[in-house]
Amino acid sequence: MKIAIAGAGALGSRFGFVLQQAGNDVTLIDGWPAHVAAIKEHGLKVTLDKDTYTTQIPVMFPKEVTQNMAMDLIIVFTKSMQLDQMLQDIKPIIKDHTKILCLLNGIGHEDIIEKYVPKKNIFLGNTMWTASLVGPGHTQSFGSGSVSLQNLVAGNESDAEILAACLSEAGLNAQYTDNIHYSIYRKACVNGTMNGLCTLLEVNMTTFGKTTPAHQLVTTIVNEFAAVARHENIELDVAEIVSHVENCYDPNTIGHHYPSMYQDLIKNHRTTEIDYINGAISRKGQKYGVPTPYCDFLTALIHCKEDIIQDNEAVTN
Amino acid sequence: MKIAIAGAGALGSRFGFVLQQAGNDVTLIDGWPAHVAAIKEHGLKVTLDKDTYTTQIPVMFPKEVTQNMAMDLIIVFTKSMQLDQMLQDIKPIIKDHTKILCLLNGIGHEDIIEKYVPKKNIFLGNTMWTASLVGPGHTQSFGSGSVSLQNLVAGNESDAEILAACLSEAGLNAQYTDNIHYSIYRKACVNGTMNGLCTLLEVNMTTFGKTTPAHQLVTTIVNEFAAVARHENIELDVAEIVSHVENCYDPNTIGHHYPSMYQDLIKNHRTTEIDYINGAISRKGQKYGVPTPYCDFLTALIHCKEDIIQDNEAVTN
Repeated sequence: MKIAIAGAGALGSRFGFVLQQAGNDVTLIDGWPAHVAAIKEHGLKVTLDKDTYTTQIPVMFPKEVTQNMAMDLIIVFTKSMQLDQMLQDIKPIIKDHTKILCLLNGIGHEDIIEKYVPKKNIFLGNTMWTASLVGPGHTQSFGSGSVSLQNLVAGNESDAEILAACLSEAGLNAQYTDNIHYSIYRKACVNGTMNGLCTLLEVNMTTFGKTTPAHQLVTTIVNEFAAVARHENIELDVAEIVSHVENCYDPNTIGHHYPSMYQDLIKNHRTTEIDYINGAISRKGQKYGVPTPYCDFLTALIHCKEDIIQDNEAVTN
Repeated sequence: MKIAIAGAGALGSRFGFVLQQAGNDVTLIDGWPAHVAAIKEHGLKVTLDKDTYTTQIPVMFPKEVTQNMAMDLIIVFTKSMQLDQMLQDIKPIIKDHTKILCLLNGIGHEDIIEKYVPKKNIFLGNTMWTASLVGPGHTQSFGSGSVSLQNLVAGNESDAEILAACLSEAGLNAQYTDNIHYSIYRKACVNGTMNGLCTLLEVNMTTFGKTTPAHQLVTTIVNEFAAVARHENIELDVAEIVSHVENCYDPNTIGHHYPSMYQDLIKNHRTTEIDYINGAISRKGQKYGVPTPYCDFLTALIHCKEDIIQDNEAVTN
């Protein structure tokens, strides 16, 4: 299959590598000059557990794509706020038959993707694979993961199953699900609590979990997600999801990790994805007439912190 | 007049000093050993603008008071969370005629004071005087201020006017007001926004004011205060109060200051007064059936931060 990875960061590069190994014709598309340059010059380096591989793989900037590069599948792996611009830039490679698989965290990305392809070509997924960048051109990951995915509109189940099979052939352990919206909401509840709260308080998940108000805060926020999801005929099991979120506190598993939003803002002084997690719930809440004050306030507080950190950086530089 | 200052920190000491200078029989009561010891040994040092005065003034711990020390007036100047214990400890000096003037920031202190004296002896006030401690036994303050005060229940207006006159004779610029509850709410709106938000984000008021969400956040919180106050027949002028709060951002006046809650928690790792500001609004909201989600969330977040900082300190020590 002719596959483009749109947003070939840590996880995108890893997916691109294994899909190429499985015999697909893969192109990486990314906007970070040092990363693109490193892959062009030295090939893509991929560390999987203890082994490191180097492979030659086509790589380019979004605006470098051309009409004759028609893709069967584009897997989007950008940051949420870059998705729209990415699809705009790579329009030349999106044809009538091109399928888009969205594996981004967060809520409501289909609203953006719909502007570029018909709904029948949109597939939504969720992945438990993780990866991090060692540096430009070098991605690493440990342990195993999985992908679940589904067609956005009814009638394309077999296409979704074909996609899942293609990913599984590359070892990505993918499965068709008939309930992707539930899975996406469930995962968004983890991000919608741990990301914002740990970033605001600048702590890891174990430390947050030890605070007295933790349970009440998580429960209130998950209830807002559930109230919004109900208007989309998705009935979240709040107690199960709260307990799923609270598993993150375990210091023996992932509790000592700082969520990705912390990495983005506190470590790297980058804008966060809050508008596509809690901010998305606020927008949907407004649309459905459902109050979401905790999501509203948390979104605003993270924006305050972005302003403060970025302003501070501007002064320092 | 025989006056006790219950909670003789920076501002309490200053009030005690000028009231003594004006001819009153003043006793300072405080729980901080180093401060009490310093005043006993070297006298109370008071820096007012450029001049420093030293005076001998009676000082003792709350539990040292005795039955024969009947007070005409007790001015309470503790931290909010210490008020109840203080009144409990100094019960021996509270007689039938003893008046209590409460100048604490925050909301609802009369509920505690009522446990110790009849309502007719309670007077509520607001002060714009400020002071800070240079060290144990030494308070300093700059510029001028004022006090407004009122009897809690109707019929004691003349007593309130006598109290105001007594304070004014000591140069404290005090006035009787017929609207103290409004003034207390108005001041609590400043503390209920600047204290919690600047402490959570660890910034001064100018920096907070520059963030994009600042105006929306302040407006939402002040609206919650107003919704609660309405149930006590107090109609806050939200636009005026928001603009009053936003005056704090001015870098040429107080904008570069960090609010007292920041000093308490971030600098000195002490528990904050949040339960008596935003937390009081949450409790009243619950009582009146008024949703106050921003006050609830802000209170919880400050408690998270207290837990994190105090836990961290316990580990470090």
